[in-house]
Amino acid sequence: MGANKQLFIQIYDHIVSRMQRGEWQAHDKLPSIRQLANEFQIHRLTVFRAYQLLKQNGKAYVKEKSGYYVSPLSSEQQNDAFTVDASIFTHIHFKNDMSKIHRVPATYQFSQALIDPNLLPNLFLSDYVKKVFDIYPKMMGTYSSAQGDLELREVLCQYMMEQHPVDLDPDEVLITTGAQQAIDLLARLFIRPLDNIIVERPTYSVALDVFRAQGARFLPVDITPDGYDLQQVEHFMRESRPRFFYMNPTFHNPTGYTIPAAQRKRLVELAEQYQCLLIEDDAFHDMYFNEIPTQPIFTYDTDGWVIYLKSFSKYIAPGLRVCAVLGRRSLIDSLITLKSLADNGSPLVNQKLFLHYFKSERMQQHVDKLRTALQIRKEIMEQELAQTGWEWVSPQGGLNLWVKLPAEISVTELWDQCIRQSVSFVPGTIFDPSRELNSSIRLSYSFVNETQIKQGMRRLVDAANHIRSH
Amino acid sequence: MGANKQLFIQIYDHIVSRMQRGEWQAHDKLPSIRQLANEFQIHRLTVFRAYQLLKQNGKAYVKEKSGYYVSPLSSEQQNDAFTVDASIFTHIHFKNDMSKIHRVPATYQFSQALIDPNLLPNLFLSDYVKKVFDIYPKMMGTYSSAQGDLELREVLCQYMMEQHPVDLDPDEVLITTGAQQAIDLLARLFIRPLDNIIVERPTYSVALDVFRAQGARFLPVDITPDGYDLQQVEHFMRESRPRFFYMNPTFHNPTGYTIPAAQRKRLVELAEQYQCLLIEDDAFHDMYFNEIPTQPIFTYDTDGWVIYLKSFSKYIAPGLRVCAVLGRRSLIDSLITLKSLADNGSPLVNQKLFLHYFKSERMQQHVDKLRTALQIRKEIMEQELAQTGWEWVSPQGGLNLWVKLPAEISVTELWDQCIRQSVSFVPGTIFDPSRELNSSIRLSYSFVNETQIKQGMRRLVDAANHIRSH
Repeated sequence: MGANKQLFIQIYDHIVSRMQRGEWQAHDKLPSIRQLANEFQIHRLTVFRAYQLLKQNGKAYVKEKSGYYVSPLSSEQQNDAFTVDASIFTHIHFKNDMSKIHRVPATYQFSQALIDPNLLPNLFLSDYVKKVFDIYPKMMGTYSSAQGDLELREVLCQYMMEQHPVDLDPDEVLITTGAQQAIDLLARLFIRPLDNIIVERPTYSVALDVFRAQGARFLPVDITPDGYDLQQVEHFMRESRPRFFYMNPTFHNPTGYTIPAAQRKRLVELAEQYQCLLIEDDAFHDMYFNEIPTQPIFTYDTDGWVIYLKSFSKYIAPGLRVCAVLGRRSLIDSLITLKSLADNGSPLVNQKLFLHYFKSERMQQHVDKLRTALQIRKEIMEQELAQTGWEWVSPQGGLNLWVKLPAEISVTELWDQCIRQSVSFVPGTIFDPSRELNSSIRLSYSFVNETQIKQGMRRLVDAANHIRSH
Repeated sequence: MGANKQLFIQIYDHIVSRMQRGEWQAHDKLPSIRQLANEFQIHRLTVFRAYQLLKQNGKAYVKEKSGYYVSPLSSEQQNDAFTVDASIFTHIHFKNDMSKIHRVPATYQFSQALIDPNLLPNLFLSDYVKKVFDIYPKMMGTYSSAQGDLELREVLCQYMMEQHPVDLDPDEVLITTGAQQAIDLLARLFIRPLDNIIVERPTYSVALDVFRAQGARFLPVDITPDGYDLQQVEHFMRESRPRFFYMNPTFHNPTGYTIPAAQRKRLVELAEQYQCLLIEDDAFHDMYFNEIPTQPIFTYDTDGWVIYLKSFSKYIAPGLRVCAVLGRRSLIDSLITLKSLADNGSPLVNQKLFLHYFKSERMQQHVDKLRTALQIRKEIMEQELAQTGWEWVSPQGGLNLWVKLPAEISVTELWDQCIRQSVSFVPGTIFDPSRELNSSIRLSYSFVNETQIKQGMRRLVDAANHIRSH
């Protein structure tokens, strides 16, 4: 909260907001440095620095031997003081860059790492719904527990134990509204201002936004087709005592890379040795093309150092938003309390609808078909890219291509050109905690159909050629 | 976030947690005061005070001319250092007292301010569902926007404008997962550690837990059958510049009181004058018995100083968890960004199911029936209480009786006795920001049926007589 800011800047902001709210008006005497230092229980020098900054910025002036006074506001500021705006009340800048990009309208949406609703089993699901309401006639009138429906948690444990060499108890599961909520709850539980966390570079940008809002400092570890630089990871864990390592090791978003099995085992050892939690976000595990991917990092964990996020939103039922958080009981208990404050539990209807579909044979058939459809779309996009000479590593699963453009094509310029052609993509810088990856872009092949991929990619390549030729 | 703690105590806690995590072990040299002051960008005296406290508490010792060293841990602490527990990672104590009470099993649950699922139109809703899925065949495969489904927001605006003298635009509405999420988002947007907020005494305890977790300081204003002490409200607004006044002015939880119209108008004037937002939580407005209650405070507002929370969870479909937040566009925009980080939007299925039911004629019939059923239950509970001589003000709506016990009956003792008799209620202290209201209890008549109310109340009164006679 106020996060990475130095303390004197927080005090400065606080004073400015009290001025803006009209508490201290033009030519009012501000409290003495001693008074404010007492009020906030901080050192007087900190207040002094804040007052110096107020003076520098023309917000306060000094009368010799008397103290600090409020400078008259500009007329613009005076107007501000009488309008209601969240910015008057808060200095926290919540932002979500990705959602800004998604708000730009486009016919060829390569920016959406979502699955085309036409690929989802909508009709079947609708038929299914009535049946589920017959089983639980009072489900609309009933709250879920904050932890989530027990029957659903049991089914998910069963599923995990069938798929992976793990032993799980329903007490070790929390149901959240999508992985987004899981990430937010974990950030609120573990991060306090100035805390270090390890993140991949690049990584899921909305997670970065969430961590930033909690005041985290990022320790970025590059992800490559061969995995992470484990020496870098160990160095960070040893030297900077990060709260956790947030990772998306299987068909990684945005790159599509998968961390090899040998690294997975080693990461758990490091986590134990340095007592650094691993948060394994595994939204794409089931979206493989030819081979089942290597086991989740969670399955190597015996001592509870891995928290596993299994979202089913993307490829089963985005309209239901069901995600499971798996972890050691004590961690899940803390998350449950936080979840009870955050929304008192995800809606029961969604959990019951999901549960019954998830158990059905039809579900498996759907996922099989979906894999094929995604692979075809990926291949079409790659065919269109083949002529460009741009670089990418062909992913073995997931929803995205991570493409490096040649130096002479500016991503910003390409974005401007493409939007005019009704084509959208996501510029790579958004995924970068240090905002430096400025020659890569993410192209999602999951949201638009084959024809649209062909047409949209041609427009995109034309736009790039247009830039190159100028 | 460490919240109300002094800065040097936050530093102290930080160092202790690094010791606990094994980063600094017995007889390790701690960083110099200068180093830590640089690392946190705070004054050296603050670090010095933290180190002094470590010494006092036996966590560090001093070597002359060398510095501070870690004291050997007790064996108990050593064990702690090797178990995974959220408490190792965080000092924030998230808690939810109400949910603890609800976890105590009881046949006669007077602790639940929820509506008996048998009073909700479950069968009708189930039939309805299939129809809604026919209208939106792809609803399971589609995400909602973070703000909420536009069609639902339009319908809710329409409804509000039919019911009340207000003018509303769908842009001024945000859909959340129940009022609980709305309260949490507002707390995250507006409260930073040490901020003052006005709260009613008593008030909804889970809101207090949310505000506490954000580090708020409470300015409590008593609520009585005549309303608030407006001089007290004005005094707080003038002297302590609270971020907002969180209120539940209609069939207030837990007391059932309603703030009179004259005070409503005046509260908006005060809000404007002192630029203090009013957060009007209005979950029980439609749960009146004989007369439609006075207009919401929101309807007196012209300049955007009131944020209105309209939850439909309680009396329509708890399994769907639909709540609307109404407010000035700029505030709603900030909330949308925060909502996009928190869970990227409430599930679409719930919004569409709710929307169609809400528009139906059947909905109005349901609410009429529900009012009658609740009134009957309230009257039965009051009949059982009549013989006791205990004090309460008969509410004209809502779900609860707020009962003052005579001095000779200890609430704690009554709770112990009642739980043995499988009767639960909520002790009044839980609703009190200052934890002093220790002779009142909340009895909800909404969750158990008529027969259970009679039986349970007899057990409760017997338990009280038993205490009195000892």
